[in-house]
This record gives sequence, structure tokens and C-alpha cells, in this order.
Amino acid sequence: MPVMTAEDLTSFMEEAFPQVHEDFQVEEVRDMGLRVRLKVTDKHLRPGGTVSGPAMFSLADVGVYLAILAQIGPKALAVTTNCSIDFMRKPAARTDLIADCTLLKLGKVLAVGDILMWSDGMESPVARATLTYSIPPDR
Amino acid sequence: MPVMTAEDLTSFMEEAFPQVHEDFQVEEVRDMGLRVRLKVTDKHLRPGGTVSGPAMFSLADVGVYLAILAQIGPKALAVTTNCSIDFMRKPAARTDLIADCTLLKLGKVLAVGDILMWSDGMESPVARATLTYSIPPDR
Amino acid sequence: MPVMTAEDLTSFMEEAFPQVHEDFQVEEVRDMGLRVRLKVTDKHLRPGGTVSGPAMFSLADVGVYLAILAQIGPKALAVTTNCSIDFMRKPAARTDLIADCTLLKLGKVLAVGDILMWSDGMESPVARATLTYSIPPDR
Amino acid sequence: MPVMTAEDLTSFMEEAFPQVHEDFQVEEVRDMGLRVRLKVTDKHLRPGGTVSGPAMFSLADVGVYLAILAQIGPKALAVTTNCSIDFMRKPAARTDLIADCTLLKLGKVLAVGDILMWSDGMESPVARATLTYSIPPDR
Repeated sequence: MPVMTAEDLTSFMEEAFPQVHEDFQVEEVRDMGLRVRLKVTDKHLRPGGTVSGPAMFSLADVGVYLAILAQIGPKALAVTTNCSIDFMRKPAARTDLIADCTLLKLGKVLAVGDILMWSDGMESPVARATLTYSIPPDR
Repeated sequence: MPVMTAEDLTSFMEEAFPQVHEDFQVEEVRDMGLRVRLKVTDKHLRPGGTVSGPAMFSLADVGVYLAILAQIGPKALAVTTNCSIDFMRKPAARTDLIADCTLLKLGKVLAVGDILMWSDGMESPVARATLTYSIPPDR
Repeated sequence: MPVMTAEDLTSFMEEAFPQVHEDFQVEEVRDMGLRVRLKVTDKHLRPGGTVSGPAMFSLADVGVYLAILAQIGPKALAVTTNCSIDFMRKPAARTDLIADCTLLKLGKVLAVGDILMWSDGMESPVARATLTYSIPPDR
Repeated sequence: MPVMTAEDLTSFMEEAFPQVHEDFQVEEVRDMGLRVRLKVTDKHLRPGGTVSGPAMFSLADVGVYLAILAQIGPKALAVTTNCSIDFMRKPAARTDLIADCTLLKLGKVLAVGDILMWSDGMESPVARATLTYSIPPDR
């Protein structure tokens, strides 16, 4: 079961990632997973109003990271080692992205999480990603 | 052989990606590949001064995109469909990243490129990535 | 909605892939997805009785391929262009693997499918994979 | 520098992987890399005579595994945790595949290797792959 709530994760981000925490909002925490929103602003957009690839990568990375923290607590310093991401559809213009994250493995050394994301209000996913995190031994 | 020079690519970026073109500098264009620099500034950094994952993803994405344009010209509208990226070492603090890109396939429908990147002046790579781009039929 | 049943897919495999069709059994076809079993025999095993990586790759590849055929019919000649696969746990010894496949995108040119697989009777997944298929224009 | 020669690796495979060792031949070992041949026989083929995807995956997996062993010796029990593979061209019919493997990282916990493979005698690569191995702590 998770040991951190959505509020705990928000406070943690404010301290640990002052530059980006305003971009994300944890919507729901559940066992081995959570839902997080990218609050899309101009800096996330490409010409035409679509959300950029790096912004989607960023949402995937933050989502799985927070899902790990929610399970093991705020002390861990997990590091992304691998990401495979598929961009499947064009996001809706100037629309928040919602990502649903599920941890498939939470081992002593490695954690693996899946992400599916879509434009708020749309049904078809715009991207999917899988990320692996290395968890330092002294957690 | 490439049909665009480093200068051509720079001009293209200025027009097409006004928000990010200042971050990148094409250092060298060769047949089926090029070298590009991420001019690291505060916005690319995580606490501790290390370059963020999204900034590295962005360098990989731009690098392969420009390598494709260099071969087929500025009219194409290639779209990233897949990226797998491995983060292997911590980048040096507040140091530019250099990425070397090689196109492994440049087909009518899909292009595949490899990226290796490292902190300027260091020897061991910090990350590698492979990206697939879908090339629209009417190019 | 699918245009081929589990029986249709089995007949198709018998003709198209005589060398491997006996290894697989389609268990269930649903809209944009299916469930398929790898009937594990000696040739799929590594020393110690565990299912080999190539056998798991093979299950992922066949699963998404069949899920695409189920939707678009047996005439298509889809070709795997990319696979990212995560091996998360050791499979149970000498035990069938079950794979659940979901198509996330079925476009004119590219299809993307997700796979989760586990040892029959176990709960935790042993592997996950995402595969991209290129669909020839003249289907 | 490598601590095992091509002959050492061949002997190791004969003992550790009796079922598959005859399929592979190490052609050359160098620092942080090697070249290995898949001796293509009927079992590796798909209808039409082309080498199957699982056979190519298998070559990638064995190649990086042997490259790790060559550096750290035969006692290690490295486990594949992730593979991303891109299939870029159709292999030549009934022709051996050659894979060139380079280790990009050989850490205490994780190793990452790149593979490029092509049909013997051809120039353009048929596939590329990156694999991550987890190295058990007690090596």
C-alpha cells in the first residue's frame, strides 16, 4: 500500500523540484499506481499549439518517479535508467495531459513502471511509455 | 549526401522552432549523421546542477530530426513515433552536452537514428538513444 | 470489432507459420486485444527449466501480430519494426506463459500493441513488451 | 581489457548453453566489445527463407551477454532486464548474421550494450538493439 498521499507527493515536489513542481498535479494515488496531470502552458507547446515530445517525456518520467516514491517514501533517490516511449497520436491543442502510471515491478534494485497518457477529455491515448528506475542500495 | 549544411539547419530551426533553437548548435554535418551541442543553461538543470532527463531527451529528438532534414531537405515534416533512451552516467554539472547522431535507416516511410551523448570534454557517454520517425507520404 | 475468431487465427497460423504454430494457442479474442498461450516445451527452456528470453520475445511478437490480424483480417502482411521488452521476474519452471495483448493504435501505416505476460497460475507479470508494426500500404 | 578470449567464450557456451551454443560463433573479442556470428539454419528461418525476429533477438541477447562475460569473467550470472530492438531491413535469405556488440556501460549493478547486425556480405544493417543486464551483487 502507498505510504504517501497526493498531498505528501505535492509537498515533496515543491521542495525537491522547485523548477518544475508547478507543472504537475497528482490527481489520485492508489496501490502501485497513480494518476498525474501535466498543466500545459506555453512552455510545453510546439508551433501549432501541440504539446512537445520533451513535455510528454517529462510527464512520463515524473509520473513513474512519484509512483515509486508513493510506495517507498520520500527518502529514496531513484534514478531513471531507461525509457521507451511511443508517440501515437497528436495531443489536442493547449489541453492538459493526464497520465496513468502503474508499477509493474518494485524490486530492491530496479523498479519498472508503465504510463499511458491522453489529452484531458479525449479517449484515445497520445503516448505510452515504460520507465526503469535504479534504486540505490541504502534506501 | 546531405543537402543542408550546418548553417541551413540553424536557419531552419530559427524559423520552425523559435522557442528552442537557441538551445542547440549544429557542429558538423556528414553523410547520414551530424553532431549537435546542447548549450546548457539554468532551465536544463536539476537541483545539483546536473542536466535533466527531459533536456537529454530533447537533445536526442532534435539531433535525429536534424540529421533526417539534412538528408532530405527542409520541407519534410517528420514525426517522432518511438524513442528508447538509456541514461548511463550522471552528466557533468553545468556543462554542455554533445550528441553524435547516425541515421541507420532512411526509408520512404520510416527513419531510424542512433544518438550517443556526453558532457563536453568527458569521454564516457552519459546517454544513448534510438529514435524512429514517421515520414509523411507526400514529401 | 475483430473480424477473425480464435479459430480463424489458429487456422491462419497453421498455414502461414507451420514451424511455430503448435507453440501458441489463442485463448480469447476481444475488441483491440487478445490472450494467447505459449505452450512451453523443452525447446523454450534455458538450463534450470526457465523459459528463455527469445521464447518470451516470440510470444510478444506473435501476440501483437495476431491482435492486428484479428482486427484487419488475414490478408495483411504486417512487419515488426520495433520492440521494447522488459524482463521483470523469472518465469516459473516448465510452465506455460499467458500473454495479454492490447492494441493501443491501429493506424493506416503503424500499429502499436502492449503485451503483459505471466506464468500460468501466477499473479505477478514476468515480462512486458511494446511492439510496433508497419502495415504495408496496399492492404 | 577482456579477460576471456573467443575460445574461452566458446567453451563457456558449450557448458552453460548446450542447447544453443552451436548456433553462435565468436569471431573477434576486443576491449568492451566483440563480433559474433549467427550460423543460420532452418530453425532460424521464416517462410520465404528470411531470418526470424526471435533469432535476431537471440543473437542480440547472446552478443551482449558474451561481451559482458569477456570483460568480467565466466562466473557472473548477468540477467537481461531490458531490450529495445529495431528491425530495419529484411535479412538476406539463408545467410548468416553478423553482430557487432559494444558495451557502453559496465557498472557494478547494470551493464548496457549496443548491437548492430547485418547479413554476411551485405553493407546495410538489418537490425539494431540495446540491452541492459543486471549484474548480481556477489560477483
